[in-house]
Amino acid sequence: MSSLLPELRPDGRRAEQMRSVTIVPDFISQAEGSVLVSMGETRVICTASLEERVPAWMRGRPGGWLTASYAMIPRATRERTARESQQGKVGGRTHEIQRLIGRSMRAVVDLQQLSGRTLHVDCDVIGADGGTRTASITGAWVAAAMALGRLTGPGPVAWRNVVKEPLAAISVGLVGGRPCLDLNYDEDSSADVDMNVVMTGDGRFVEVQGTAEGAPFDRATHDAMLDLASAGIQELIRRQLAAIEG
Amino acid sequence: MSSLLPELRPDGRRAEQMRSVTIVPDFISQAEGSVLVSMGETRVICTASLEERVPAWMRGRPGGWLTASYAMIPRATRERTARESQQGKVGGRTHEIQRLIGRSMRAVVDLQQLSGRTLHVDCDVIGADGGTRTASITGAWVAAAMALGRLTGPGPVAWRNVVKEPLAAISVGLVGGRPCLDLNYDEDSSADVDMNVVMTGDGRFVEVQGTAEGAPFDRATHDAMLDLASAGIQELIRRQLAAIEG
Amino acid sequence: MSSLLPELRPDGRRAEQMRSVTIVPDFISQAEGSVLVSMGETRVICTASLEERVPAWMRGRPGGWLTASYAMIPRATRERTARESQQGKVGGRTHEIQRLIGRSMRAVVDLQQLSGRTLHVDCDVIGADGGTRTASITGAWVAAAMALGRLTGPGPVAWRNVVKEPLAAISVGLVGGRPCLDLNYDEDSSADVDMNVVMTGDGRFVEVQGTAEGAPFDRATHDAMLDLASAGIQELIRRQLAAIEG
Amino acid sequence: MSSLLPELRPDGRRAEQMRSVTIVPDFISQAEGSVLVSMGETRVICTASLEERVPAWMRGRPGGWLTASYAMIPRATRERTARESQQGKVGGRTHEIQRLIGRSMRAVVDLQQLSGRTLHVDCDVIGADGGTRTASITGAWVAAAMALGRLTGPGPVAWRNVVKEPLAAISVGLVGGRPCLDLNYDEDSSADVDMNVVMTGDGRFVEVQGTAEGAPFDRATHDAMLDLASAGIQELIRRQLAAIEG
Amino acid sequence: MSSLLPELRPDGRRAEQMRSVTIVPDFISQAEGSVLVSMGETRVICTASLEERVPAWMRGRPGGWLTASYAMIPRATRERTARESQQGKVGGRTHEIQRLIGRSMRAVVDLQQLSGRTLHVDCDVIGADGGTRTASITGAWVAAAMALGRLTGPGPVAWRNVVKEPLAAISVGLVGGRPCLDLNYDEDSSADVDMNVVMTGDGRFVEVQGTAEGAPFDRATHDAMLDLASAGIQELIRRQLAAIEG
Amino acid sequence: MSSLLPELRPDGRRAEQMRSVTIVPDFISQAEGSVLVSMGETRVICTASLEERVPAWMRGRPGGWLTASYAMIPRATRERTARESQQGKVGGRTHEIQRLIGRSMRAVVDLQQLSGRTLHVDCDVIGADGGTRTASITGAWVAAAMALGRLTGPGPVAWRNVVKEPLAAISVGLVGGRPCLDLNYDEDSSADVDMNVVMTGDGRFVEVQGTAEGAPFDRATHDAMLDLASAGIQELIRRQLAAIEG
Repeated sequence: MSSLLPELRPDGRRAEQMRSVTIVPDFISQAEGSVLVSMGETRVICTASLEERVPAWMRGRPGGWLTASYAMIPRATRERTARESQQGKVGGRTHEIQRLIGRSMRAVVDLQQLSGRTLHVDCDVIGADGGTRTASITGAWVAAAMALGRLTGPGPVAWRNVVKEPLAAISVGLVGGRPCLDLNYDEDSSADVDMNVVMTGDGRFVEVQGTAEGAPFDRATHDAMLDLASAGIQELIRRQLAAIEG
Repeated sequence: MSSLLPELRPDGRRAEQMRSVTIVPDFISQAEGSVLVSMGETRVICTASLEERVPAWMRGRPGGWLTASYAMIPRATRERTARESQQGKVGGRTHEIQRLIGRSMRAVVDLQQLSGRTLHVDCDVIGADGGTRTASITGAWVAAAMALGRLTGPGPVAWRNVVKEPLAAISVGLVGGRPCLDLNYDEDSSADVDMNVVMTGDGRFVEVQGTAEGAPFDRATHDAMLDLASAGIQELIRRQLAAIEG
Repeated sequence: MSSLLPELRPDGRRAEQMRSVTIVPDFISQAEGSVLVSMGETRVICTASLEERVPAWMRGRPGGWLTASYAMIPRATRERTARESQQGKVGGRTHEIQRLIGRSMRAVVDLQQLSGRTLHVDCDVIGADGGTRTASITGAWVAAAMALGRLTGPGPVAWRNVVKEPLAAISVGLVGGRPCLDLNYDEDSSADVDMNVVMTGDGRFVEVQGTAEGAPFDRATHDAMLDLASAGIQELIRRQLAAIEG
Repeated sequence: MSSLLPELRPDGRRAEQMRSVTIVPDFISQAEGSVLVSMGETRVICTASLEERVPAWMRGRPGGWLTASYAMIPRATRERTARESQQGKVGGRTHEIQRLIGRSMRAVVDLQQLSGRTLHVDCDVIGADGGTRTASITGAWVAAAMALGRLTGPGPVAWRNVVKEPLAAISVGLVGGRPCLDLNYDEDSSADVDMNVVMTGDGRFVEVQGTAEGAPFDRATHDAMLDLASAGIQELIRRQLAAIEG
Repeated sequence: MSSLLPELRPDGRRAEQMRSVTIVPDFISQAEGSVLVSMGETRVICTASLEERVPAWMRGRPGGWLTASYAMIPRATRERTARESQQGKVGGRTHEIQRLIGRSMRAVVDLQQLSGRTLHVDCDVIGADGGTRTASITGAWVAAAMALGRLTGPGPVAWRNVVKEPLAAISVGLVGGRPCLDLNYDEDSSADVDMNVVMTGDGRFVEVQGTAEGAPFDRATHDAMLDLASAGIQELIRRQLAAIEG
Repeated sequence: MSSLLPELRPDGRRAEQMRSVTIVPDFISQAEGSVLVSMGETRVICTASLEERVPAWMRGRPGGWLTASYAMIPRATRERTARESQQGKVGGRTHEIQRLIGRSMRAVVDLQQLSGRTLHVDCDVIGADGGTRTASITGAWVAAAMALGRLTGPGPVAWRNVVKEPLAAISVGLVGGRPCLDLNYDEDSSADVDMNVVMTGDGRFVEVQGTAEGAPFDRATHDAMLDLASAGIQELIRRQLAAIEG
């Protein structure tokens, strides 16, 4: 039977539909800012911690700094993964993700105003079903905005004193020739192209990382994926603001 | 004003009273067994994962093996603590705790029946307010019993096929000259003696670790602390059984 | 004085002009394939080495594998940089670059035909004046094509037996609000956006990595940078082919 | 033939009998305090070294510090064991033992009087036939008392100026259902329970570490082992005092 | 056919003949001093970099310091060798060579005149056909003399202000019972004795390292090898001076 | 008062006189071969251990292998030195010494006859007053000869079945312009030249390592030092043979 309806994805989503999103603020009560963010089965604990000093290489310079770390609990994955701490080194993938989260967050936090302080953003994945790095960025922004807002003033929008723009991230992939938003692990494993996009509330890019996992991709595909991601991120930003301003 | 009532502890507990306990089973859905265990503000995610092989040194021997790992998210503590993975090595305290959890669990799991398999018990502290190693053991037992029960049969007590006894752990300390059960971080910091006890459901010891942090302690104090711990552990075991058999 | 001519860059180049390119094949005589590639003052030695085995995780699977490594001599930079080997670990930037080179090369090498072999692509930067990762990819492709061509047949285009497409990479940045091709170190340090693009001979993308170093960038800027990079890469591919087919 | 005599242990000892003890003071002439301590075939070189500074974390605080290290020569064991230094990391067992020695010694040394100094206690096992950690503590106390006594005054009891109490340690185990003092390697390997006790000259505990290696143990067994250890330690302390005051 | 001519070596050289030597100054333009030195197929890039500080252990002492590092690109060897940086540690051979280069150079550089500075000498082998450590020393001297000469004055012999003597190094071996100068890899592999000699322009030794790879060697052999090396080094020093004074 | 007698060294020795030598065989009873060797205040425990396998890289080749390790207890030195195991890596000096001991021993042990076995020679310095590497070699030979002799036959000279020649080592230095045998730490610190010589019982060299610590040295000095060392080593070999054949 032929159908006029677009084909649904294995978990019943449409191509442009993201997974169910939940954002639980203050999940880690002892942190200045924290959140448990879920995109479907992907779940990440993000905390933001202020430290009253800057890294050694920044001493004597004006402003502050922001660092990010990323890790997974051993059973975040379907098959257990050994801890990197037990192996005595952090792998290349983790390094890459930490650098991405840090760069992205620094693009929207006004580091000048952190004068003499470091904001540590720590992301701990407790469920890894695809898109952990983008969920980490989305959660990290909420945790950081909470911590910085509390630092600088009362009220739900106090974060605007130190954070220039909302920021969120999402993945988009080319699956079976069709651009799809927010891939889960199964889709990600079979995708030909994987793209991670980090974007601000006013629609500008902070990171665009498109990678051909299978065949190289043409410009039209690239553009279509970027469109999908942009729309998804604006929706995520609405959720973020609701979580911290509600 | 003099009082006939015993003096309460800073958080309002009596000397023999443990903190509020909650056990959330299946907190990590992708694991064979998992739990979020809380003792007051101390919170630990424990997972149990079965792997279809044994460590290299056990190849060719009968039976299976059980290993344990332990880590904290950076902001489990009041002040942020850097990840051990970033430092390139696991510290002495972590080693010590991992070895304690592993030994304790191996004392009650029938390794012969794990033939050819390894059970990995992974503990991730997300709130560290004292007693994280004992809470990890209490949680690890629940996660392991769930995973092994599901492996060997239907019904709430299927874990008894592979697990010989319930097992839980608690700390007890000498604070201001008085033995107190289940110290939180503030009490622990000022305790003269810190004792961790691991015990089975039939009242036998698996580990007794008493340490003079301040002045050495006499035999009577030692005995009183052991009594307190024993009573506390039996209460914990009732909670464990309710969680997995409920 | 007003001018109708577009403003030239500090080194006299036009916005869309890449630096002087030289490709010296067989620079390392003992390797199956090798090249010294220069983009202005940026110079990279690339070698391709065939090993008659695959990594442990690939044993028993069909096909072969390709790995990449990247390092700098201590004085590749203006100020001396300590060797990573002396520090006991490879830094995050190096990990990231190695992964990028490896992924890019695997997108155009027919791994099935490497059956049971690993092709190691090693890039050693001896001059670092911006764009070392893209120059490494451009050089790595030449070294790999030489090694694989010699493996599979006589003649200048024997590489086509195993390599699906030519591949090159270049950086493009937003400097003073204007997209410029192939930034050198000074321009890179002051760029607002840095984009690295890896592309095949038939004009398809393998990697697009755009990063806001300063302010986020809008879609129009993104598109203009991608256009610049695409044109530059096609010119680089002409140079690559001339070098190996000449 | 039935016997009214208690059964002797494989090496001819009675249950409550420790191995032959020798303490050779000043074994390492260049150290402020040193000893070669032997418990049967277990032999440990202990040195105490005073350093005129404290660890970084103690700067600015009053008092001094004491650290402990522990290692084995490769052939301390029956089968050669590779050096931990060659493996690039210190194992969990070593960490655990070092922490135990350090904590135990700090319980009896008056750190306030070490103002600005660190006392390093280093234990090197040259024969490992069971009980190396307890022999290390027993030897470490002698080495430290010698070093600190020489620092603070003339005469055999000058150590009492800085050391609050004598301190020794011994192991006790449950072998074949019977508590036995000071297990050697063969007994230790087959023991159901292994307990290490650290105690002061006035009969108070610094550490009690009982571990079920096989079956868990009941309270009566625990108490009997503690009694055995207490008696043994008082005998060891007599030997220590004879060695330094003789 | 008998011959009155001495037997030639596999590559056509006489016993006392070194390989073809080339010294390319300023090979790394961004360094204060640099050279590409070749002894046959052995090729080493040497750079000398001045840093305006001394190692921590030298702070407060008069004079400066000189350090050396040594590495090989992966494909310097016939079979590819993995990078030491990827393995997380520097091997024993590399340590040994770095220490040799550093000691040798410090013997002829007037460290007092480097007051407060460190001269870093970095050697990167891009072709390893035997004698890489001696070629590194020969090249390191040229790079250092260039850097120090430019520091202290105009003219080709300005290096004499800070460098006490020319210095070069060469290997000599016992091959088939005959002392031969400047072994290549094939000869080195089959040599019974390998000797590395470092010598000054006025004919004094800085290092003599003779090693029996096969059978031990007698005094007469030792003396003959030392004679060969001495003559070779004086020839190398003529080449060095020509390169920097030309 | 002028004197016709040659000037004595600070510890009363003549220039050609070595320190007091003692060799205590079987110092480590559990090892196949062991010795405590003393040269004045320099003391080294050497053990030889046979393992029934060869390193991975030797699998499938005929013969066996010999490895050496070297370490110091923290207080072997006048000032305490931190353990290399605690620092997570073995330093360059240790690597160099281990390689020297291993090479030297392999020159006189008939590795073919070790077929399939590895002989581990482990040297642990407990007193470091100069000359620890040469004392280690002298002691290692005794330990190895004992272990191999016991392996291959009865009688004091059974070692000759597997060990080709006696072997010992000594240092010689140029102090105040005068060649002196067997420097202690104080002399070594002020020596202009330091030479380590390893030699066999039949007077052939295995290693000659002369290093200018201060000014370079001429050929006549070199020859005089070699003469001194040769005589010293023959005396040491007499002591070795007495120790194992006695």
